Amino acid sequence: MSKTEGQPRPLFLVFEGIDGAGTTTQANLLTRSLKTQGHSVVSAREPGGTEIGERIRTLLLDPAMADMAAKAELLLYAASRAQLVDKLIIPALNAGKPVISDRYAASTIAYQGAGRGLDKEFIESLNGVIVKDCLPDFTIYLDVSPEVANKRKNNAKADRLELEGKGFQERVAAAYREMAADHPETSLLIDGTCGKSQLAGRIEEELRSRWAGFPYGTLEKPGRRGFLK
Amino acid sequence: MSKTEGQPRPLFLVFEGIDGAGTTTQANLLTRSLKTQGHSVVSAREPGGTEIGERIRTLLLDPAMADMAAKAELLLYAASRAQLVDKLIIPALNAGKPVISDRYAASTIAYQGAGRGLDKEFIESLNGVIVKDCLPDFTIYLDVSPEVANKRKNNAKADRLELEGKGFQERVAAAYREMAADHPETSLLIDGTCGKSQLAGRIEEELRSRWAGFPYGTLEKPGRRGFLK
Repeated sequence: MSKTEGQPRPLFLVFEGIDGAGTTTQANLLTRSLKTQGHSVVSAREPGGTEIGERIRTLLLDPAMADMAAKAELLLYAASRAQLVDKLIIPALNAGKPVISDRYAASTIAYQGAGRGLDKEFIESLNGVIVKDCLPDFTIYLDVSPEVANKRKNNAKADRLELEGKGFQERVAAAYREMAADHPETSLLIDGTCGKSQLAGRIEEELRSRWAGFPYGTLEKPGRRGFLK
Repeated sequence: MSKTEGQPRPLFLVFEGIDGAGTTTQANLLTRSLKTQGHSVVSAREPGGTEIGERIRTLLLDPAMADMAAKAELLLYAASRAQLVDKLIIPALNAGKPVISDRYAASTIAYQGAGRGLDKEFIESLNGVIVKDCLPDFTIYLDVSPEVANKRKNNAKADRLELEGKGFQERVAAAYREMAADHPETSLLIDGTCGKSQLAGRIEEELRSRWAGFPYGTLEKPGRRGFLK
């Protein structure tokens, strides 16, 4: 079956990368571009994206919460994701709307797994329970060095996770590269150091080359999203 | 080895029961009684008990958060517990201080498992990862009917979980009874309908009959708390 055949369905796209890689900027630019083209795109972000998730976000990023246990952090991200999947992503996709998320389950593997050193197997089973069949169709990994990321953040007030050292950011970046290499068919690792408009153009081009009907795909892989009716 | 032999160690005690059963009142009365006797007892509660946990508590009990996904709720309780174990319970026990907690891991099995119907196996594996060897020495299950519990709460403003129906509270109460029956050596199911001072006296008496050095036990079961040095 060719890519253009079958029933069209909205795509679920995720941006990932270390803090300062530009995930928020690029997720916003792609969303704006698609909205300008008349598509009803839904924005998600992690942590956050729902009322409960945004309250969890405030707690997670508060620099005053320096004493947070690594497992508590992991579970707060997981709680925010559970709410996002149930209340925003699945309803949007079922209503035929493409979803663009600034971070998703891969962030937990990179930050709490590679960064904090929490048990990878437990993280994956936790992700499995929360995410179930709600997997992204495609993940864009923005690759920048911790040095470039830090320069970008110089003028902004650092949040709790950004206060972690360079070694932490390097472990996170390495984990993202590994995930991209492990899933070549459903992801793209792209150098995030160039100008943001130029980068946005390249990303949209890459996505269009994969789906003729972008931001809609087809049901060529039925069953991959068990929740779709 | 008799109960009084071996190295004394602080006990970790937990009160459980449906909302309105009196867990908070009885945990406070026992703590106060032991403090009056000169013991340096540490109080814990769930959700809460730490700065981060109290922020999670506010979110969990907020009636405005009616749209919370069951899994998000489960993970928020789990996050609060992870913080409590790491930052309050283990440090207190390692410092030789007995701990009395108003609710703990059994609440998740009763509320999110039996009450909400979430997968019991997942809840138990989640509890296992968070709690590890930090198991209570003894759990006091306060048994009251949902009717009695509701009468007690009549004058108080209901929180988000208390707004659940009677069927929910009955499933929770049944789960507590089952847990007490499954662990006769480390728990006591006690009728919670009598007067609070009388009940507090009976509970303290029951505990003293189990440990001559109450609120300290002995290391007759080494390895049960892997974290104790």
